[in-house]
Amino acid sequence: MPLDYTYRIQIPHRAGQLATVAGTIAEGGGLIGDVTTINVGRESSMREITLEIEDRDQAERIIGMLNELDGVRVVWARDRALLKHEGGKLVIESAHPVRTVQDMRDVYTPGVARACQAIVENPSLASELTMIGRSVAICTNGTRVLGLGDIGPVASMPVMEGKAVFYHQLAGVSAMPILVDTKDVDEFVETVVRIAPPFGGIHLEDISAPARRVLASDPNPLSHERARAKGIEITDMQTVMDEADVVVATTGVPGLIEPEMVREGQVILAITNPYPEIEPEDALAAGAAFAADGKSVNNVLGYPGIFRGALLCGAKQINPEMKIAAAEILASLTTGDELVPDALDPNVHLQVAGAVREAAIASGAARLDRAPTGL
Amino acid sequence: MPLDYTYRIQIPHRAGQLATVAGTIAEGGGLIGDVTTINVGRESSMREITLEIEDRDQAERIIGMLNELDGVRVVWARDRALLKHEGGKLVIESAHPVRTVQDMRDVYTPGVARACQAIVENPSLASELTMIGRSVAICTNGTRVLGLGDIGPVASMPVMEGKAVFYHQLAGVSAMPILVDTKDVDEFVETVVRIAPPFGGIHLEDISAPARRVLASDPNPLSHERARAKGIEITDMQTVMDEADVVVATTGVPGLIEPEMVREGQVILAITNPYPEIEPEDALAAGAAFAADGKSVNNVLGYPGIFRGALLCGAKQINPEMKIAAAEILASLTTGDELVPDALDPNVHLQVAGAVREAAIASGAARLDRAPTGL
Repeated sequence: MPLDYTYRIQIPHRAGQLATVAGTIAEGGGLIGDVTTINVGRESSMREITLEIEDRDQAERIIGMLNELDGVRVVWARDRALLKHEGGKLVIESAHPVRTVQDMRDVYTPGVARACQAIVENPSLASELTMIGRSVAICTNGTRVLGLGDIGPVASMPVMEGKAVFYHQLAGVSAMPILVDTKDVDEFVETVVRIAPPFGGIHLEDISAPARRVLASDPNPLSHERARAKGIEITDMQTVMDEADVVVATTGVPGLIEPEMVREGQVILAITNPYPEIEPEDALAAGAAFAADGKSVNNVLGYPGIFRGALLCGAKQINPEMKIAAAEILASLTTGDELVPDALDPNVHLQVAGAVREAAIASGAARLDRAPTGL
Repeated sequence: MPLDYTYRIQIPHRAGQLATVAGTIAEGGGLIGDVTTINVGRESSMREITLEIEDRDQAERIIGMLNELDGVRVVWARDRALLKHEGGKLVIESAHPVRTVQDMRDVYTPGVARACQAIVENPSLASELTMIGRSVAICTNGTRVLGLGDIGPVASMPVMEGKAVFYHQLAGVSAMPILVDTKDVDEFVETVVRIAPPFGGIHLEDISAPARRVLASDPNPLSHERARAKGIEITDMQTVMDEADVVVATTGVPGLIEPEMVREGQVILAITNPYPEIEPEDALAAGAAFAADGKSVNNVLGYPGIFRGALLCGAKQINPEMKIAAAEILASLTTGDELVPDALDPNVHLQVAGAVREAAIASGAARLDRAPTGL
């Protein structure tokens, strides 16, 4: 996996020096990203240069090469992702500062009792007088995190914080990571049900599916032992196609799956890029219940707007109509040759939310006439 | 319970008009707090005036009185606490905005995987690379909220959000309300244990103690039926003193409890103000294990700094040494004739945190040498 490394480098403050540094980095095989000037003195300037590199050895080699340049000194070089994770990524804070005694009377003693009492008298006011109507719990037990597998709840926290960052930035939703320390399905479900009250939505994330039969075919025998250790049955391609309900093909062989190999109702994910093992339309024509190729997109395009849309109307579930509405609006917002719209464009997420809300209302999943305050 | 009501009032823009309005409010028995000018036109100005009143009937009466003044119109009058609760009080957001593709690579895909991997390799990094080291779960089942009693988890949310507001504002701690929807003690504990991983501290709040024997004595027979309905045994004063392990006296009768009535090891809370039923020092001299009078303080003076101090050193528990250190530093920070320092002064909470941290280290409860990043 490529790494982004930031190098803080002291460079002589003369024309051509940055070019020399950049040339040396290129020789070392690093791809230059952002260049930030930290300060400029009479003799030298201090820059932070971010490189995409292959591994830590390469990072070290480039440090050595740069330090051999006349007047150039690498002050430090660090994995940029770890730098940016320092202190964690989320803050839970007051929507409005509490500055005066009157503020304190309003939001705490004695005013808070009236807000509680109002909810006791009319429970639907909870979505007006608390954050419940605009909050989501991101629940995981850390059993299937990215490509890292079962790393447990605590080590999964950076991923959950990242999801929550985008929830707020892209959809104005307050999302809280809830790490559930159990691998037992019933215990997990029971725990999430018990802590559900203060959340308008429950987002289940990176949880491994319960342990089912998995078949695999791989011409490379080196992978077989590792697969068997995980309980996977090694077999041949024909058996996989004959017996598996869900087929995931990552062979690198375009067109490997012939339409006549597809069974009625099978799910075919042929994700070799850019040409899949079978085109989705051919798989569907051959009877597949669902088919997709590998032009997959990051799910950050979907979940913030989908949950915002659900919260906007107090949806009791996220049904297929709502997901299809999200997919259709995303497709309509795509410009030029892009496959999907820009994930950092807030308008994209607002449009998704609007479409999901409408679909929820049209399909009978909505419970609120108007959006919760603050969303 | 007195209410704070905000009146939005259109008032003729001429000298003496505000005085007339204030006089009318005084006639109606309202105590004026903040006066805010919303806008000033040629003919009239718009003000928001906050009043402390006794009840909603009085609020309505004052509206009527004001509307009878020439040129004065009450646009609306609302319970200020409810106004200030609209939309809830907490926001969960990114510590740093994600603006560029590089930001996204750092905090989400692919950088986040390296943060996860770093924690897998060295679990203690969780307090550096996530919010865990500076976060607290405020856990409740809403069974004993303020003076409102068992109002359930959702209606208790405004109180929990209020606690969290002060955690961040006064101690820089990110606190999340966790409402647990069960009254079963074992289920509650089990749930909190399971969701504990992403929190550096667990704050249990407003949970009723399991159902124990409660004795009461009250010369007013009107209260007896209500008390019996709650399972309280009505008896006489002597029996209470002879049998109760914890005595709470709210009689309004100074000196009612004689030292010879106090049993060895009893807890005596004599909370009539300004002169208690027995002075704490007399109760202690008579053998009480603990005694206090009614000069009680809001616990917002304590919990933010105590938990911050515990988080600063990764304390494994909050022991008596830490609580005593908090109490002593609070006493030392009190100025003039005040009983306690100003709860809105951030320095007070930083001092409490420092003292609690030192006490944790000295008493062997600390686990971290240095504070988690970001706290």
